[in-house]
Amino acid sequence: MKTKVAIIGYGNIGRAVEQALQVADDMELVGIYHHNDDMSAVQADVAVLCTPTREVPAFAEKLLARGICTVDSFDIHTQIVELRRRLMPQAKDHKAVSIIAAGWDPGSDSMVRALLQAIAPKGLTYTNFGPGRSMGHTVAAKAIAGVKDALSMTIPLGSGVHRRMVYVVLEDGADFATVEKNLLADDYFAHDETHVVQVNSIDELNNVAHGVNLVRSGVSGTTHNQRFEFNMEINNPALTGQVLVACARAAHRLTAEQRYGTYTMIEIAPVYMLPGDDEMWVGKLV
Amino acid sequence: MKTKVAIIGYGNIGRAVEQALQVADDMELVGIYHHNDDMSAVQADVAVLCTPTREVPAFAEKLLARGICTVDSFDIHTQIVELRRRLMPQAKDHKAVSIIAAGWDPGSDSMVRALLQAIAPKGLTYTNFGPGRSMGHTVAAKAIAGVKDALSMTIPLGSGVHRRMVYVVLEDGADFATVEKNLLADDYFAHDETHVVQVNSIDELNNVAHGVNLVRSGVSGTTHNQRFEFNMEINNPALTGQVLVACARAAHRLTAEQRYGTYTMIEIAPVYMLPGDDEMWVGKLV
Repeated sequence: MKTKVAIIGYGNIGRAVEQALQVADDMELVGIYHHNDDMSAVQADVAVLCTPTREVPAFAEKLLARGICTVDSFDIHTQIVELRRRLMPQAKDHKAVSIIAAGWDPGSDSMVRALLQAIAPKGLTYTNFGPGRSMGHTVAAKAIAGVKDALSMTIPLGSGVHRRMVYVVLEDGADFATVEKNLLADDYFAHDETHVVQVNSIDELNNVAHGVNLVRSGVSGTTHNQRFEFNMEINNPALTGQVLVACARAAHRLTAEQRYGTYTMIEIAPVYMLPGDDEMWVGKLV
Repeated sequence: MKTKVAIIGYGNIGRAVEQALQVADDMELVGIYHHNDDMSAVQADVAVLCTPTREVPAFAEKLLARGICTVDSFDIHTQIVELRRRLMPQAKDHKAVSIIAAGWDPGSDSMVRALLQAIAPKGLTYTNFGPGRSMGHTVAAKAIAGVKDALSMTIPLGSGVHRRMVYVVLEDGADFATVEKNLLADDYFAHDETHVVQVNSIDELNNVAHGVNLVRSGVSGTTHNQRFEFNMEINNPALTGQVLVACARAAHRLTAEQRYGTYTMIEIAPVYMLPGDDEMWVGKLV
């Protein structure tokens, strides 16, 4: 019996989830719902939330209340603990599982950070992002008066320090120097090295590539200088969609085991994200 | 209440486990047992098996039969499924947990491979080992007639292909050309590029450094060219000891949750390897 999956929200991520479901033999796409659709119409084992991040909590609550598992890639790092607390009773009371913050960061990177914390408990981890588009900074740049369209690229400089390259299309009559001054003063940009570049079109720069370089130097037992590094260069929505589908599988399995509740990815065994028999994966991967 | 941990076997790994326990505030070393000690004397929540790998199954069975959890770094990849099958009923029947193959490969590398399999389900993963000492090849080299002492280093050439650099001390009167010929014909060495070098002392070359370069290029959903890489440069016994202690913690927790049975690391949530409260780690690491 295939796991019945619904997609809620059909933007970049929703389409990537659809593609990942197409190649997942153990899962079946049973419906795509848009933003304003009635959530009481959703019939599925698991709903994958691909709405804007701020709308995730409300959608998750509605679906969990109906006993439908949810998976989301909520990405405001500072509010993940709060979201986990909020959805925990809702999931438990309705015998469902909610997996939150299931993207690549937060998400798969978090699993790597947790693993490295366990195997080298003392030390520093730096997560360096990019080069790639920052959604939050792009939205902040678009909000500056005189900016018609914008793109903020994150460039890694090492040890968790980033440069912001902000490409802007100006509104007619806007003054570049003023726009640049206001943008550099914005709290989103004031703390990082930021360069503002005027362009004619953002569409021409469009590229969903992103990257991560995560490094830890730490101590295992009493032995220093243990060095670890995790790198990736990826298509951002494709990876997010795949992580969501892998976590939809995990949510369904946790439900079958009656382990109801709200989980982040560091609270899930990696094999739960894989289809089929555990023993087969032990033979192949361990 | 601290988790009571016993160490079985007191070589390189046993000593590294002792060091990792010294800096683990939630755990207490309650005994170090040697190879020939009576296992019916062991009193502990978890026994960490640091015996030679081939003796792990028998020690695990004896301790599980007494309801004592076990953790080991059994490292014969092709026999892990068999060991998991063998210990599964023993662990379940005696309400204990056994975590097997808990080192770095098999072990933490396996968790990374499982994560990458989940987030890019199609593609190739290459695990490149070294530079570092191969235990298996060193033992094979020592078994060649005329070899007094030996050290086999594994040098990564990429795409999972390795060079063997074998350093040998000859017995009095042994002929190097003959030793070299027999070694190169040995099944352990016949399939890889192998160089044999005569030296006066192995002790002078002694270094427990090791490394891994694990790469995957794969497909997320229907999107190709997703690239991932995990690297480490580490002190081998220190990392193994730390992984064993982290897994002793996980075994104790799984037992408290009455999830008895035999697990490999891909079947364990990363947060189970960490001390203290899950929510605290969600806030720090996710």
